Amino acid sequence: MIPQAPCPATIEINEVGPRDGLQIEQRFIPTAEKIRWIDALSTTGLARIEATSFTSPKAIPHLADATDVVNGIERRDGVEITVLVPNLKGTERALACRVDELNLVMSASASHGLANLRMTPQQSIERFSEIVSMARESGVFINASLSTTFGCPFEGVVPQARVLELIEQLVALGIDGVTLCDTTGMANPAQVKALCEAVITRWPSTAFTLHVHNTRGMGLANALAAWQAGITRFDAALGGLGGCPFAPGATGNVCTEDLVHMFEAMGVNTGVDLDALLEVAATLPELVGHEVPGQVVKAGKWDRRYPVPAR
Amino acid sequence: MIPQAPCPATIEINEVGPRDGLQIEQRFIPTAEKIRWIDALSTTGLARIEATSFTSPKAIPHLADATDVVNGIERRDGVEITVLVPNLKGTERALACRVDELNLVMSASASHGLANLRMTPQQSIERFSEIVSMARESGVFINASLSTTFGCPFEGVVPQARVLELIEQLVALGIDGVTLCDTTGMANPAQVKALCEAVITRWPSTAFTLHVHNTRGMGLANALAAWQAGITRFDAALGGLGGCPFAPGATGNVCTEDLVHMFEAMGVNTGVDLDALLEVAATLPELVGHEVPGQVVKAGKWDRRYPVPAR
Repeated sequence: MIPQAPCPATIEINEVGPRDGLQIEQRFIPTAEKIRWIDALSTTGLARIEATSFTSPKAIPHLADATDVVNGIERRDGVEITVLVPNLKGTERALACRVDELNLVMSASASHGLANLRMTPQQSIERFSEIVSMARESGVFINASLSTTFGCPFEGVVPQARVLELIEQLVALGIDGVTLCDTTGMANPAQVKALCEAVITRWPSTAFTLHVHNTRGMGLANALAAWQAGITRFDAALGGLGGCPFAPGATGNVCTEDLVHMFEAMGVNTGVDLDALLEVAATLPELVGHEVPGQVVKAGKWDRRYPVPAR
Repeated sequence: MIPQAPCPATIEINEVGPRDGLQIEQRFIPTAEKIRWIDALSTTGLARIEATSFTSPKAIPHLADATDVVNGIERRDGVEITVLVPNLKGTERALACRVDELNLVMSASASHGLANLRMTPQQSIERFSEIVSMARESGVFINASLSTTFGCPFEGVVPQARVLELIEQLVALGIDGVTLCDTTGMANPAQVKALCEAVITRWPSTAFTLHVHNTRGMGLANALAAWQAGITRFDAALGGLGGCPFAPGATGNVCTEDLVHMFEAMGVNTGVDLDALLEVAATLPELVGHEVPGQVVKAGKWDRRYPVPAR
């Protein structure tokens, strides 16, 4: 019998709504509204907020205001601000704003990398090497998000051996954390548990984060499986915003408030004030101009009571 | 270290859509359409179908055609037909149709029992005793569904000790199986795992089924936790139909095709031909006249491939 890893008593939530959530929205959210939203989020006990992406304004016009957003938000102790950076120019802009973390993104599968980033995995690794060289002495935390870790919408299954080989290269570069991304919601709990156990065992000093989508309803089940494997860091998007442009019909990221609700109901400490988070989540349909998938905002928390109906 | 129960290699699905799913629908589904639907379901490898309820037509007008439905459907080897029976009269009608299983329903909490069935738990147990006496010699399988096992929308938490005490009484009556029902989606995976482990250990020859709702997004996570505890029987409703009249805004039962999809992706044998089930699920919006929550019908199975976009 293999001893089971103890299920962690405490986890950390990385809110990716302002970046991953917004980038496929139809309308541009005005900078002031983004700042108000992030400021509201940063009072709820989230460990980390992915505030924006320092990418070319042409590539993602919705996030063209990256510098203004990061310079405009209130910085709070205990809430790290992370941003996506695609290249050296973005890194330079991000570092000038004194972010706490850089998030580099690559795909585990070549066809997704070429479609999404115009780079093969190997080209991404080379790019990351340059970014690490530039950013290292700033002391910023450097995270790499590995898209299509659990499967590629073009290629299908990505073999676990291939994923481990890429992580090996990322660790060798000096990357501090790696996010295992189920970009289009293909992962199942058995697969998540197996990969999470493998990476935690092999690289105990690397900070691993799970990033899942709820495309096929398995978002929370996959998060549960990762937690059982010892994962303590979870990406999630408020309201379940987001999606993948290459998998139409797919719903978005796992919903932050639903994830926090599940773990808090289980007695796991998320650090988040769920009531405060639900208040922010309730404002989301107005902010983005449409309904969002999150369920706890609609149903209420598990301990919600109803009046006994009249006989 | 407590040895972990092995996760079961095979599970059984009990489709509750035609009964639990339909009873809160707005429109009456014509008998012929119900029969066509159940006949289609019974070719997909489901172990059991809860076809209807032999309740008073006044109480649930949508299921007033119970006898015609059960007599009209094609009976197939390997597919058990179960029906809800609330009393002796319903039992007599059900037995006359040669059903395979009777499903008796009671609540673990008094206020829900009184609101839903006009009976306290103790009154329900007495009623069950009469039904068991009448039905025993027919050889039919007798199941008891215990509503609000994981929480009551009026009273809140139902203590596990109270639930175990009620199950003890059910087992003493000679009930063959007990369904643990999370009637309004209040359960979390830690609670599900703890209760399932407790009942399996204590009553190894009773057939336990998990019945969860996806009200707060935890349906599949709760099913996963139950499976990890050794549960092999799962209630689910096609498309995620259903709900609870006393918890407005709550979404329905865990979705059959999403549940089958998760377990099949994990390599667990559900006995179900998922493609055939998805075909039936795709006809559901037309049958019930509205969209349904199921996600795999919309997103496709986990291994769905997309064409690489043009550059």
